[in-house]
Amino acid sequence: MTDTVISSAKKEVVIGFDRPFVMIGERINPTGRKLLAEEMKNGDFSRVEADAIAQVEAGAHMLDVNAGIPLADEPALLARAVQLVQSITDVPLSIDSSIIEALESGLAVYHGKPLVNSVTGEDEVMERVLPLVARYGAAVVAISNDETGISMDPDVRFAVAKKIVERAADHGIPASDVVVDPLVMPIGALGQAGQHAFALIRRLREELKVNTTCGASNVSFGLPNRHLVTGTFLSMAIGAGMTSAIMNPLHAEVKSAVMAADVLMGTDKDCMAWIRANRDPNAPAGEGGRGGREGRRRRRE
Amino acid sequence: MTDTVISSAKKEVVIGFDRPFVMIGERINPTGRKLLAEEMKNGDFSRVEADAIAQVEAGAHMLDVNAGIPLADEPALLARAVQLVQSITDVPLSIDSSIIEALESGLAVYHGKPLVNSVTGEDEVMERVLPLVARYGAAVVAISNDETGISMDPDVRFAVAKKIVERAADHGIPASDVVVDPLVMPIGALGQAGQHAFALIRRLREELKVNTTCGASNVSFGLPNRHLVTGTFLSMAIGAGMTSAIMNPLHAEVKSAVMAADVLMGTDKDCMAWIRANRDPNAPAGEGGRGGREGRRRRRE
Repeated sequence: MTDTVISSAKKEVVIGFDRPFVMIGERINPTGRKLLAEEMKNGDFSRVEADAIAQVEAGAHMLDVNAGIPLADEPALLARAVQLVQSITDVPLSIDSSIIEALESGLAVYHGKPLVNSVTGEDEVMERVLPLVARYGAAVVAISNDETGISMDPDVRFAVAKKIVERAADHGIPASDVVVDPLVMPIGALGQAGQHAFALIRRLREELKVNTTCGASNVSFGLPNRHLVTGTFLSMAIGAGMTSAIMNPLHAEVKSAVMAADVLMGTDKDCMAWIRANRDPNAPAGEGGRGGREGRRRRRE
Repeated sequence: MTDTVISSAKKEVVIGFDRPFVMIGERINPTGRKLLAEEMKNGDFSRVEADAIAQVEAGAHMLDVNAGIPLADEPALLARAVQLVQSITDVPLSIDSSIIEALESGLAVYHGKPLVNSVTGEDEVMERVLPLVARYGAAVVAISNDETGISMDPDVRFAVAKKIVERAADHGIPASDVVVDPLVMPIGALGQAGQHAFALIRRLREELKVNTTCGASNVSFGLPNRHLVTGTFLSMAIGAGMTSAIMNPLHAEVKSAVMAADVLMGTDKDCMAWIRANRDPNAPAGEGGRGGREGRRRRRE
């Protein structure tokens, strides 16, 4: 039983074992989104606003906010994005940057207890990020790579995660405030990527007893019908014990896989969220909503 | 590494660890299909033929054949169905009945090494079915219930499975020819059904080292949008180590979840089956087939 509590001024979200999976919206990120990057750089945050609202409406429990734009004033942009998103939604945020000054400026304006995304197992990074996380009483995403890069050996990645959790403890950050990202590789490039991730997630939960997250869409990079691969990955990772992910709830295949996985893990109590989301007001009583196709087939026989 | 080899006269299918998941078509079964039952009873097997062909075309690696119709001559019907299906398809069959005489008449006409569906942990059933399985050199589905019914305690179900595997060995049937069905309850009725199934599947694989199967559609009974729940269950069960299921490959949500799970387990080598099935001939080069929606969104920005 490990609970990671994240909050905004008004709302608390708990990432935890045997709780509904936490979807962290990934869209507010200019990486690979040229137009968004250009707009943010020019002070136009209308798309950030629209992405925030759309993701929350689609069911995101938290939002990741990233302002990583080359040659831009990232600390200023990230602070502005954090303030804007907090002014129009009440979900807690994940403050996302690889630049320490940007994390700091985002933390300085944030209301509540955010998730800091991220710290790696590199000594220099840990020594800069962890004191900041401790000072603001935040939680932190721990990415299981270090100075030597991303190991293809899951045992090495586990060891890196363990090192970060221990170092965090030295700074007064409890293991329950460290959410480990096992690093998921594209399955099209590395056939063992899924197996490695599932084994690591299980071990992180059973041995380190930490919550886990990942950037889910990476797994399906380059594949056709990729959202279905991402959704299936998420359901399998949830089965292995993963408790949150940075993902796109606007993709129906991804969101419905997570919701069905919650049903199957028994964390969607009495399947109420599933039934609410899938109830078809036009279905005859007892038909079971969208299962109408089967109903029709049966009647046809 | 456990391989269960099943065959027809011309084709071999291997249910095994670290191999592509084996889909056993469930449709040829008059239970709950009034019209099919009526037709079969009257000697009209046209729907059996159509169901066999449709399921194989949809990707079924094996077909389950059941002729359980109240007040009908089940041994004769099952033998006829087995012969008919073997005359029009070359996939191996699962011969499915709770009546020993029907299993025997199906086995007598079968060409190859079939899967016998099923034996339970009831002493009387084991003493009648296992000698038959041994005599015909077949493999067998072992259902983890006994005289006391289906236990809600996964440890008891594991113990029943273990007993059947040991009893099979007494009859000269190796553990590799016993495919255990952990019995999957409807998740709408029992919120722990998924967790129980996943834990049992993992244990059956790691401790008993046997292959596993289940009647997959049962898990989603009574829920809306149920095929998506069934598909998600299958992907999570595959992640836990399940190696085959009796299922409906004609339901797109179910089949695609299995195919995506094969990708993520690394058993769809270089994702070739997935790419073949999802390639869109109209997509621009590099767009990644049906992922076109994302392509459009990106262009729109």
